[in-house]
Amino acid sequence: MNQKIKYLRSKLNAMNLQGMIITDPLNIQYLTGIKAEGTLLLTRKENIYITDSRYIEAANTAITIEDEIVIYDSRNVSKYDYENFFALCKNIGFEEGNVTYKKYKKLLEYYKVNLIETEDIIENLRIIKETDEIEKIKKACRIADNCFLHLQNYIKVGMTEKEIALEIEKYFRLNGADGLAFDSIVASGPNSSMPHAIPTDRKITEGDIITLDFGCKYKGYCSDMTRTIFVKYVPEEIKPVYDLVLENQNYILTELKDMANIKILSNLVENSFKLKGFMQAHALGHGVGMEVHENPIISLNNNQYLKENMVVTNEPGIYVTGKFGVRIEDTVLIHKNDCQALTVSQKDYVVVGK
Amino acid sequence: MNQKIKYLRSKLNAMNLQGMIITDPLNIQYLTGIKAEGTLLLTRKENIYITDSRYIEAANTAITIEDEIVIYDSRNVSKYDYENFFALCKNIGFEEGNVTYKKYKKLLEYYKVNLIETEDIIENLRIIKETDEIEKIKKACRIADNCFLHLQNYIKVGMTEKEIALEIEKYFRLNGADGLAFDSIVASGPNSSMPHAIPTDRKITEGDIITLDFGCKYKGYCSDMTRTIFVKYVPEEIKPVYDLVLENQNYILTELKDMANIKILSNLVENSFKLKGFMQAHALGHGVGMEVHENPIISLNNNQYLKENMVVTNEPGIYVTGKFGVRIEDTVLIHKNDCQALTVSQKDYVVVGK
Repeated sequence: MNQKIKYLRSKLNAMNLQGMIITDPLNIQYLTGIKAEGTLLLTRKENIYITDSRYIEAANTAITIEDEIVIYDSRNVSKYDYENFFALCKNIGFEEGNVTYKKYKKLLEYYKVNLIETEDIIENLRIIKETDEIEKIKKACRIADNCFLHLQNYIKVGMTEKEIALEIEKYFRLNGADGLAFDSIVASGPNSSMPHAIPTDRKITEGDIITLDFGCKYKGYCSDMTRTIFVKYVPEEIKPVYDLVLENQNYILTELKDMANIKILSNLVENSFKLKGFMQAHALGHGVGMEVHENPIISLNNNQYLKENMVVTNEPGIYVTGKFGVRIEDTVLIHKNDCQALTVSQKDYVVVGK
Repeated sequence: MNQKIKYLRSKLNAMNLQGMIITDPLNIQYLTGIKAEGTLLLTRKENIYITDSRYIEAANTAITIEDEIVIYDSRNVSKYDYENFFALCKNIGFEEGNVTYKKYKKLLEYYKVNLIETEDIIENLRIIKETDEIEKIKKACRIADNCFLHLQNYIKVGMTEKEIALEIEKYFRLNGADGLAFDSIVASGPNSSMPHAIPTDRKITEGDIITLDFGCKYKGYCSDMTRTIFVKYVPEEIKPVYDLVLENQNYILTELKDMANIKILSNLVENSFKLKGFMQAHALGHGVGMEVHENPIISLNNNQYLKENMVVTNEPGIYVTGKFGVRIEDTVLIHKNDCQALTVSQKDYVVVGK
């Protein structure tokens, strides 16, 4: 049996669960490599993947003998089979954050077992990345860095935010990525003051600041980076804010390591900004993996500790309503005694359109 | 109060429900025009929309006085308020197909009421399209048809599936659509034997068959169409399968109308394929609207009847494992005595790359 499923089974055992019904497609992909619509059952004896005829071929291609997964076509699974998958089992885990109430009732009806909440058991396994996962994230970060280099030549006065966003997507798709990890943010001039701006038809103008927040997926794993750049020149009023954000971003990079406390890290930035009359309007960061936002959240409300081989973002930002915003973000791999920024693009003033 | 909310309230009344908690963002958009993250409550006295500071402005802009909706900032809603929204109410409806089991438990804790399943009450209102909705779907279909014309000139031997998928997205974005209605399927050669193939780096080759399944969103409404085309020439072994699929697709178009039985329609195709030794591997179709897949499902398991002003797809398909697949799909508007295909692209052999 593959290591991930083996480890999950030991966790289930410790929770006194005799099996689990896994419905979240990313969790199934994490455990099996199968990218399809279906249900994974960890029964006492077997690992079973039930899907429909559309996905049988793809599922069979994805798994190896080592996975020890039996694939069923849902058309051949009878009412009787469903009741027997967990025969003599008392408590079976399910994903309460993925299963709708409607589906919950269906699961009860089909499997006739006690369904027990598993509190992000698989999401929490996914926090610590394995070597092959780290390699994929590194590759996704490299493609994003290369895309940023490309953008520095591409962006010209008169282009719209939408055109730049589309160029990012095109770059990713034609340079080895699966596609976007999330909808890119291209926020120019005053639009940059909204942390989650959607690209508009606004044209890039001399003297603009542009926030570029983007990332790609590579073999199912995400990168996430932000650079705030300048068009033609760096306006004097923005320099102190940019410098403050960058100083904090660099400082946090020296603090990110195994056993660093997430709450304290967040507080460091919060306080540094407050001293200058600004605030950190959003979380300082988040985990990155198969999803661009996953556990752990790096915020004041999280008193947990970082662990080796977590991958998280470091993204302080300051937003001056109606005027401009500055955010600088890297995807970072946590080591035992330090960390490694996986996105390595220039962070000093980048001026484009010259 | 707007007509949709008024009608929904009469339905709730008939179900002996004194109110409803609406969490599905598309259902909220359908009822109110608000496109944001929040919760809509239909209480005894009022319609209440609770959102956070990011969306207050957008929500206020979306609604009209006629909607009679009071907007609350979630920061100002206390535990006490939540308990009082449904004071003296016995049974309150919720969307069991949208709310996860985890959220269901939160709703119980917050609102302290009996939560009653509402069985797609709003989705079922959405099945019958109003005039302005039909106009938007028609426009989305026109853009998809134009995209298909564009692709016939664009596709060349040596291009990858991914490049073609990207061109579809680019075409939509630069020709008035909001964007993709769903991830396009561009499946060439043997890849076409998987109904839900994901675009790969496989290069288009002479003699290939290519399945193109794509659609866009226009002002929030979807189009969905599939054409299976040929590169340079039409292989003889594929012709009989193509002809069988097309014959069935055309025949179903003559049968789609108000009061047509969905199960019987599906059976017609199923039997026609079986007679030639093939099978229909997926549902014959589905509703199209704000979502690309919505009610009704057109399959053997659905014994309902079509109704005037439903919009559904008609998409028979045959898949020969490891070899090739053929699917032809239109988005169709149901009339009293017949139907209207809203996607009208050529269905006879389309040969590209000549």
